[in-house]
Amino acid sequence: MIVATQFVRFDSLPLDCGATLAPVDVAYETYGTLNESRSNAILILHALTGDAHAAGISRETGKPGWWDNSIGPGKAFDTDKYFIICSNVLGGCRGTTGPPSINPATGRPYAMSFPVITIADMVRLQKKLIDHLGIPRLLAVAGGSMGGMQALQWAADYPDSVAAAIPIATTWRHSAQQIAFNEVGRQAIMADPDWNQGDYYDSKPPARGLAIARMIGHITYMSDESMREKFGRRLRDKDKYGFDFSIDFEVESYLRYRGAQFVDRFDANSYLYITKALDYFDLTNGGGSLADVLGQTTARFLVISFTSDWLYPSYQSLEIVRALRSRNRDVTYCELSSNYGHDAFLVDISEQTEVIRSFLASTYREKAAA
Amino acid sequence: MIVATQFVRFDSLPLDCGATLAPVDVAYETYGTLNESRSNAILILHALTGDAHAAGISRETGKPGWWDNSIGPGKAFDTDKYFIICSNVLGGCRGTTGPPSINPATGRPYAMSFPVITIADMVRLQKKLIDHLGIPRLLAVAGGSMGGMQALQWAADYPDSVAAAIPIATTWRHSAQQIAFNEVGRQAIMADPDWNQGDYYDSKPPARGLAIARMIGHITYMSDESMREKFGRRLRDKDKYGFDFSIDFEVESYLRYRGAQFVDRFDANSYLYITKALDYFDLTNGGGSLADVLGQTTARFLVISFTSDWLYPSYQSLEIVRALRSRNRDVTYCELSSNYGHDAFLVDISEQTEVIRSFLASTYREKAAA
Repeated sequence: MIVATQFVRFDSLPLDCGATLAPVDVAYETYGTLNESRSNAILILHALTGDAHAAGISRETGKPGWWDNSIGPGKAFDTDKYFIICSNVLGGCRGTTGPPSINPATGRPYAMSFPVITIADMVRLQKKLIDHLGIPRLLAVAGGSMGGMQALQWAADYPDSVAAAIPIATTWRHSAQQIAFNEVGRQAIMADPDWNQGDYYDSKPPARGLAIARMIGHITYMSDESMREKFGRRLRDKDKYGFDFSIDFEVESYLRYRGAQFVDRFDANSYLYITKALDYFDLTNGGGSLADVLGQTTARFLVISFTSDWLYPSYQSLEIVRALRSRNRDVTYCELSSNYGHDAFLVDISEQTEVIRSFLASTYREKAAA
Repeated sequence: MIVATQFVRFDSLPLDCGATLAPVDVAYETYGTLNESRSNAILILHALTGDAHAAGISRETGKPGWWDNSIGPGKAFDTDKYFIICSNVLGGCRGTTGPPSINPATGRPYAMSFPVITIADMVRLQKKLIDHLGIPRLLAVAGGSMGGMQALQWAADYPDSVAAAIPIATTWRHSAQQIAFNEVGRQAIMADPDWNQGDYYDSKPPARGLAIARMIGHITYMSDESMREKFGRRLRDKDKYGFDFSIDFEVESYLRYRGAQFVDRFDANSYLYITKALDYFDLTNGGGSLADVLGQTTARFLVISFTSDWLYPSYQSLEIVRALRSRNRDVTYCELSSNYGHDAFLVDISEQTEVIRSFLASTYREKAAA
């Protein structure tokens, strides 16, 4: 399946911070076919460093999408049955308007003059895209990590437009520990002299700082077990005691490689803005109870968490589930057993596939085909 | 109790890497009085960023020692009964020879020409100090985190010189995840242009990189629960949506403060060398079984871990305990309930105090007073 990213421009987007962005571009991809009643559309929501290329092989880069193991014929999100959409988030750097985009008022990249954005802003822009595509009501919104936050926000903000929500490995508000890890990543970027207060688009980007932020991320995405299984204490091919602080252990080599690789595909200012959106995230917006907010939703919910995910631990998913149950909402909860930590929703997908497939099938029977 | 740090110089110290350091200075403090039979001495072993000033009020700085809540009259390590010693580790920057020390061969700081060191090297230097103090056999060696690794190494390398070992919140070998967190800290230091390949003693130190390394450390020392209790999502006194990426959440403010504060008291190259020593640590030295190594020890063991410590989780302490039991060694294991994470051994000490006090009392009855 060769796919091409598409683009659409909207005149303007009002933001939670009070500012208005104008214009706003959105990069998106679609897979499968929209049925006649326009009732089989599913919006896939990506995590911090994802993009619109969720499935298939990119015509441009030749690379598979970030959730290609879960989107396609016969997969969890079955493109023989459903019309799948995925767009790059607001604030991103992969085609949707974000800090590296040109500010029409100045003719130069927004950089740090980009307005502060929230998860609700991202969802507001996605709603414009869905309207543009002529879809009155999504069969489902689904995503892991930050994608799960967007799924919750969709269900809360647009109850008439979502039949089902699948928040995976996520939380209804960022915890102090989650904020702390993001903050250290931001500090690493801003400590890099090449960051230059965000004004680096004419010179070299803060590659060292961004690589360190990514390394921190990678540790939190894996579990103690999965790191031990993947690397153990295996040494690189050298004497045990290096004298130059070069790489001793395979895990060091892996982190440096992944950190360096990330710099080629991601923008440091986008990393700052999107992690801030994560940290601001609180579905109650700091007032009222979670049960009150979720009590206003109408979607069916499938909430998934993973046993070894210590970045978004299961207790945070259970808080969502309890709040929904307290208001008699329709919710299915699965804690799946996995050693892969937070990455499980991307890599350890066999059980997740079964659960999502049957949840979508019953949702389609009840809500769309009825 | 006003205390002063003392110093002793040794002619030379052979190292695991094959090099020999000459001379080697050791900074140490003592509390309490050595009895006539020289049988009541306890060596306290500090963690990554600790120093010789473990207890009392420093004559120089006016500050209390890092384990002052546990060392003193009537405390866990009771100075009315025991003679307590604590020294700064080899490779440190608080009086014992380390990367910032002057290399007599060049008249300039060693910096990155300092030889690579190991936990066993640190212990070898401590043995010289104990010999110098005329103590034939320690009643106990005790420490948390890296201090616990030294306690294990003491029991393994000098079985005739240690009656009891108290490794707390530690491991017998660093895991891939533990190595990974240290590696990101090292990368942050080395990415700072002020690091200058370690040659910064004539100019400004890599303050930004070292602060980031310290922030990463702080997150791993606390638990998800203790961060939530301490900070929650409380905002600093400002509008919710800042436009300048200044500090929004109290946890961000805390991390930046602790990071910046650390730079004034710690050397970046010491941080590199000591974290490498942690990462190299494997009590079996990469060969043989843990049970074989611990089977050669003669000390009594008290192994302590904490429920919410995810940096050195209880299962790692249990591996030590099982290995000792498999060889019929004398070991007591306590998993203490605490929300404080890895920091618990420093701050949540009431139950730990009881356990250590009674363990030392029975050791003294059996081994020293007999």
